Amino acid sequence: MEALQELASQLGDRLITAPESVAPYAVDSSRARPEGQALALVLAESTADVSAALGWADRHGVRVSVRGAGTGLTGGAMAYDGGLIVSLERMNRVLEVIPEDRLAVVQPGVITAELDSLVREQGLFFPPDPASARICTVGGNIATNAGGLRCVAHGVTSDAVAALEVVLADGRIMRTGARARKNVVGYDLTRLFIGSEGTLGVVTEATVRLKPVPAGTPRTFRASFPTIESAGAAVAEIVNGGFQPEVLELMDALSVEIIESFHQSGLVVPRGAMLVGQTVGERAAEHAERITARCLELGADDTEVSDTDALLEARRLSNPALTARGLKISCDIGVPISRLAEMFTGIERISAEHGLAVSSVAHAGDGNLHSTVESPDTEAGIAAADAVIDDITRLALALGGTISGEHGIGSVKHHELPWQLDAVALDVQRAIKTALDPNGTLTPGRAV
Amino acid sequence: MEALQELASQLGDRLITAPESVAPYAVDSSRARPEGQALALVLAESTADVSAALGWADRHGVRVSVRGAGTGLTGGAMAYDGGLIVSLERMNRVLEVIPEDRLAVVQPGVITAELDSLVREQGLFFPPDPASARICTVGGNIATNAGGLRCVAHGVTSDAVAALEVVLADGRIMRTGARARKNVVGYDLTRLFIGSEGTLGVVTEATVRLKPVPAGTPRTFRASFPTIESAGAAVAEIVNGGFQPEVLELMDALSVEIIESFHQSGLVVPRGAMLVGQTVGERAAEHAERITARCLELGADDTEVSDTDALLEARRLSNPALTARGLKISCDIGVPISRLAEMFTGIERISAEHGLAVSSVAHAGDGNLHSTVESPDTEAGIAAADAVIDDITRLALALGGTISGEHGIGSVKHHELPWQLDAVALDVQRAIKTALDPNGTLTPGRAV
Repeated sequence: MEALQELASQLGDRLITAPESVAPYAVDSSRARPEGQALALVLAESTADVSAALGWADRHGVRVSVRGAGTGLTGGAMAYDGGLIVSLERMNRVLEVIPEDRLAVVQPGVITAELDSLVREQGLFFPPDPASARICTVGGNIATNAGGLRCVAHGVTSDAVAALEVVLADGRIMRTGARARKNVVGYDLTRLFIGSEGTLGVVTEATVRLKPVPAGTPRTFRASFPTIESAGAAVAEIVNGGFQPEVLELMDALSVEIIESFHQSGLVVPRGAMLVGQTVGERAAEHAERITARCLELGADDTEVSDTDALLEARRLSNPALTARGLKISCDIGVPISRLAEMFTGIERISAEHGLAVSSVAHAGDGNLHSTVESPDTEAGIAAADAVIDDITRLALALGGTISGEHGIGSVKHHELPWQLDAVALDVQRAIKTALDPNGTLTPGRAV
Repeated sequence: MEALQELASQLGDRLITAPESVAPYAVDSSRARPEGQALALVLAESTADVSAALGWADRHGVRVSVRGAGTGLTGGAMAYDGGLIVSLERMNRVLEVIPEDRLAVVQPGVITAELDSLVREQGLFFPPDPASARICTVGGNIATNAGGLRCVAHGVTSDAVAALEVVLADGRIMRTGARARKNVVGYDLTRLFIGSEGTLGVVTEATVRLKPVPAGTPRTFRASFPTIESAGAAVAEIVNGGFQPEVLELMDALSVEIIESFHQSGLVVPRGAMLVGQTVGERAAEHAERITARCLELGADDTEVSDTDALLEARRLSNPALTARGLKISCDIGVPISRLAEMFTGIERISAEHGLAVSSVAHAGDGNLHSTVESPDTEAGIAAADAVIDDITRLALALGGTISGEHGIGSVKHHELPWQLDAVALDVQRAIKTALDPNGTLTPGRAV
């Protein structure tokens, strides 16, 4: 493409066209398949690079996909045929930490866990912690409004972002938000860009909120239940029981088996499901004991409390273990926690109806479930799995839930959008997309 | 106006045209002056009423102002000349409380403190608590993304809203959000409408998040400081000191004098300023003692700890006391808490430069300040006061702050918008407004 010379003259060797170098940037971690061959890759090193790339693409009608670390699970970062890929992996610096205001200013390519480690040196932590925290980026977290294990106590990524620098589809650069803790000045554009999955703009800098590390040694706990329903029913009791855990996860028997066959963590496969969680603060040990005691009252087979992170480490292996088995998570439903047990009963019924095994892990304290169907990674296998996930998703909606708790819509869940959003809401979503990206060059056809 | 018959036929006696009945609904609690005579008032009793009113106004090019209790401080609810007023005061029912999911579904006209009282019967509370909580409405809180005293611990209104029903400018009805705790489905329209000051749609139902009432008896505390700067400097020390208060307010000497001359609360006027706050939880008493002890180390003249609410009750009288004095709050700046002391030094300098006394109260733990200029409520007096506020506002921005922490922009602060937002951000704000209200009939010319 001749016009590419124009961009090359601005970006130099940050513009890559060799197909073998571009290809690894054309996919994410979802089951989505690339729709063709991308034109080129921009390894952006600055806001100016991103602006140049987006402005060029907009003028030439070239579709743009944007990526951090490529850990997305919905096809949001898949390259377009003849499209430009903008990677933010080189924009990976922590620019400033302001401990007294509990703020940090970061580039989008910073690895989530690395930011967390860095600020812990100052007694602070970065609350969002997707299970992929060691390989995903803050920019990617912002694009999907990622959740993770600690959400039950600390909220999602949007709760941890104060201000953004954003490059719009036409290359213009803008700022949102403020360093003040409260800010009501026009529409909340910070929140609008968070979770917009790269369709409204590209985040090139973020001012994020930190929290003080609680005093005392955290405790992890486990409670294994005879059935997944009894584990699900225990969740609301724990969350409303006055001893707020920082983490409250659920793994069913099959998901524990899958993890243990991938990496022997020492987890004992429960009869039905296990809850694992973490308590923090000066009374972490007491709270963990109170929670596990309550679980025994609620029918748990056995429980443990530990001062190591091994239980949560095992939980974080869920996605790598599924990937090693040729499976990819595509279900990310959420339900009110009072409906969790009902949701699990429904999943068992749907699994039986389709004759396909389903494993589930859940950020249970938030009612956010990832169910994975045991079905091969072939066209027919994916179609069969998708039919199960569709049924599970419709049930979540019937229970007052959502089609996506933390992964976003991307292309994988695009067909589900009208199940949740009414026609007027869909109209409004698309009117906003058109207002901000009239030529439709930035991550078109996804998210909304 | 002949077309009004069309609306009257739909709304019956919920459409009011008698000028003396309409007039009280034409103003809010700000210094803004009505721009003329409104055409009519709709006392909406249902979503259908709101839809009929907005659809009619949009078809006939009639400008609409929207109001809850009229406690707004920025002119956002002021009627338009020849405009329609939509009041939501009759839509004041709590429709549902779901304690196990900590949710309540309410109509917009519910009084904030009444919702809080109602759910306390179930061991829960509604976190947002503007100082006007006993007279303002949840819908108004949502429109401005109101803050209040408990924000330092619990966040602002947007942190307490899960889902909305909204009527758009053309009368169409839509829903946003979900009952699940996490939800990433398209753009976050819930957040977009919160704080949009009635310019994008009218909220006709809200699903709000509740929190469990902490165990134990709350304690209030006071620490009086010799200078406002020393009080300001103590704030960051307290917030980062490991004993998170639920409330942390500042009142300078003049604001305490004004409160005491309005209603004798028994507050002793401090030399410079006083911090008042509240701790909660099983260790509330210990934490209050630790905080006041720290204040003495930081130079406080004297402190007290109490198990009554009298200190905060006195603080809540600030706005009524100013109103009784013929003054109205129009300053609502925010700064990072590390800059509070600097901000107060600057306010003293600006006050001296203009030769006008300034009183300040602050949601100090959030860095959110309301400064009021001692200047008569006349045209010249307001102009002189505005010049002071403008200088204070520019200083807040220079310190990394915001022009509005919790009251919004309305018409009163409209001229300040370009001071904070860059040209691209302003463009984006207005593109969103145009996308959702192409005819510009819903609260035009305000907020953005």
